[in-house]
Amino acid sequence: MSFIEVSPDSHFPIQNLPYGVFSTQENLRHRIGVAIGDKILDLSVVKHLLTGPHLSNCQDVFDKSDLNELMAQGHVVWAETRQRLQQLLSVNCNDLKADSDLMARAFVPMESATMHLPASIGDYTDFYSSFYHATNVGIMFRSKENALMPNWRSLPVGYHGRASSVVISGTPIRRPLGQTKPDETKPPVFGPCRQMDFELEMGFFTGPGNKLGDPIPIGKAHENIFGMVLVNDWSARDIQKWEYIPLGPFLAKNLGTSISPWVVTMEALKPFTVSNFQQEPTPLPYLQHNDDYNFDIKLEVGIKGEGMATPFTIAKSNFKYMYWTMKQQLTHHSVTGCNIRPGDLLASGTISGPADDSLGSMLELSWKGSRTVSLGDGGSRKFLLDGDEVFMTGYCEADGCRIGFGEVAGKLLPAHPI
Amino acid sequence: MSFIEVSPDSHFPIQNLPYGVFSTQENLRHRIGVAIGDKILDLSVVKHLLTGPHLSNCQDVFDKSDLNELMAQGHVVWAETRQRLQQLLSVNCNDLKADSDLMARAFVPMESATMHLPASIGDYTDFYSSFYHATNVGIMFRSKENALMPNWRSLPVGYHGRASSVVISGTPIRRPLGQTKPDETKPPVFGPCRQMDFELEMGFFTGPGNKLGDPIPIGKAHENIFGMVLVNDWSARDIQKWEYIPLGPFLAKNLGTSISPWVVTMEALKPFTVSNFQQEPTPLPYLQHNDDYNFDIKLEVGIKGEGMATPFTIAKSNFKYMYWTMKQQLTHHSVTGCNIRPGDLLASGTISGPADDSLGSMLELSWKGSRTVSLGDGGSRKFLLDGDEVFMTGYCEADGCRIGFGEVAGKLLPAHPI
Repeated sequence: MSFIEVSPDSHFPIQNLPYGVFSTQENLRHRIGVAIGDKILDLSVVKHLLTGPHLSNCQDVFDKSDLNELMAQGHVVWAETRQRLQQLLSVNCNDLKADSDLMARAFVPMESATMHLPASIGDYTDFYSSFYHATNVGIMFRSKENALMPNWRSLPVGYHGRASSVVISGTPIRRPLGQTKPDETKPPVFGPCRQMDFELEMGFFTGPGNKLGDPIPIGKAHENIFGMVLVNDWSARDIQKWEYIPLGPFLAKNLGTSISPWVVTMEALKPFTVSNFQQEPTPLPYLQHNDDYNFDIKLEVGIKGEGMATPFTIAKSNFKYMYWTMKQQLTHHSVTGCNIRPGDLLASGTISGPADDSLGSMLELSWKGSRTVSLGDGGSRKFLLDGDEVFMTGYCEADGCRIGFGEVAGKLLPAHPI
Repeated sequence: MSFIEVSPDSHFPIQNLPYGVFSTQENLRHRIGVAIGDKILDLSVVKHLLTGPHLSNCQDVFDKSDLNELMAQGHVVWAETRQRLQQLLSVNCNDLKADSDLMARAFVPMESATMHLPASIGDYTDFYSSFYHATNVGIMFRSKENALMPNWRSLPVGYHGRASSVVISGTPIRRPLGQTKPDETKPPVFGPCRQMDFELEMGFFTGPGNKLGDPIPIGKAHENIFGMVLVNDWSARDIQKWEYIPLGPFLAKNLGTSISPWVVTMEALKPFTVSNFQQEPTPLPYLQHNDDYNFDIKLEVGIKGEGMATPFTIAKSNFKYMYWTMKQQLTHHSVTGCNIRPGDLLASGTISGPADDSLGSMLELSWKGSRTVSLGDGGSRKFLLDGDEVFMTGYCEADGCRIGFGEVAGKLLPAHPI
């Protein structure tokens, strides 16, 4: 138990301790903190207390303006840091608690902090690893019989995304202009996207990584997975449809990707490990691992249209619906020798479940615009309207303890005039 | 004329002055230089001489370890820098030449320098903009009638590449392991790539860029194009074939992308402007520009197999075969609001010409492996063999003046054992 009071419904008890980067009005410098209850412990202030056999040699990483160097230290340092932070925040430890001067400087109320991207993201990759999502999209655009592409069960299909347009929760997203072909028999037209969508995803930040040419074996993959965030991979469906053959999604996906500010570590998630998704056929040996590396993370999407007082929940899903594990994604990503650097972001792809209310995109919820999705008193939608705010949240829960991700939120602004 | 002697066949006369990042055995710090003849002028040493109305305020950018901050300054500073450097290096100017102490420190023989990536590349994008290449690939995998995809003439098709695996010329590239499906009737297999290829491309580095949500209009595109390099986008064709549907090339392209070290500025290339490729149909207004922004850059590819004394030239192409201009590529890239940052790299895609010996990849030269490509005394190839070194060079020439790119080279190492 912590000497910092944590309400029972908080996402950030002492068992969580996610890392983030924040600044305050009084101190504009971007610095690293951990969330505890409704406070942030400023690690740049307490870094001298972060002692341990390895940790003592790298206290400087807590003085940086992003988490990349901590991610680069590797899992031994991560574990030591977590252990020491839990100790420092515990009611039984006086190292921090008893120093009233330090205490006054060490904690910042979350509400007075501005959050920033937790890492300088070198590369962003987006997978397509939810069985139900891939199946739904396949049925929609092909047929039930040919829903999954032939390669889908053999490898974690993914593509390189755009790192520059990954933004922190709260950043407004502008409805894009772009080229589409609404009438198949006529030339393409230019104008605002008419099928603006969200994608409910999660992503993980990478650890030390590998050198170009030397893949990360599956047995070492977990040592390169630092922690996870919520991801809203905003998508322009009509732009995507016209542009994506043959080289994949491009502009439809680089108009903004929002992430939640707190990186929840794999250690915090460990108690919520569940069985891996059943894989059939058995993957090739380079992708095989026997341990469970799937997680029971409850996910929700809400939309708050203009004039609505609160968001209306339109989908509930779960990270456990992932067919491919993060270890398999990372190993596959590096198998050709691609070098992974600390702070790369690898996202899951849209996470949909088997039920009608567990679909992680408007594309699926409205079944390509063929049905409306109710927002209760807020009317209905097929795709997003200008002014809509999209909220995603996620948490694990067991024995009254909630390990949460906070939220990722973003408002859709109207397109620029042509 | 420069007081530095420049041989007539040099790529680097005073009319060129490309920027690069280098270090020496004596001074391991990465610093910015310009190439002149067979020497490098170390700009960190002469930055106090870089004076001008705008330049005087940003001399610090020449003290950085990459070109990103110079790229961020914009075209007015670029022009001033070029003008001042040409003056400093001219026989008629004593500012540098007459200071023997400074002279001794300012120049480094090119042969004693180690070159590094010219910029910290935030994002790497690869287009598919050569008409003949896209047509050839289309004929090979579909048919002559359906060679070009319906969208190809309407927009510059492209995809996000991997920034981490962009490496400087000379870096060896390892033949990747990966998943392929050599027998359509059998499950996929894991092993070394059997269709290893190069791609003859060029790329440009971006200038100041734009904020997320605010596209770069075509009229401002040139202000965001700093200069160009040669690009070898190594490709694993068999891996690509199995993985790329429906999200595009992924692992087949992230095993290494080699670039030449000297960034030739658009100002140096201006005298070699030629007519744009005829576009039919006329592009949508957001992609239209009336001025010529195509360049006559002669390109060559040579392969030096193990045991060969010199590279054997297997293809001669030209940048002028690009259907889409760099201005159109950049404007299209940002039209949905995607933010471009200084130092992003946008590559052309394989540049093939209309003739059989102007094809920019083994895929085309060997027509999907259906014919052999002679290396003279070095035997023949369908795809690359272990130990092959691939050399690409490029230059413009007129009135006895050669503006060159130097070369991009790389050796293919054997795959790791499984």
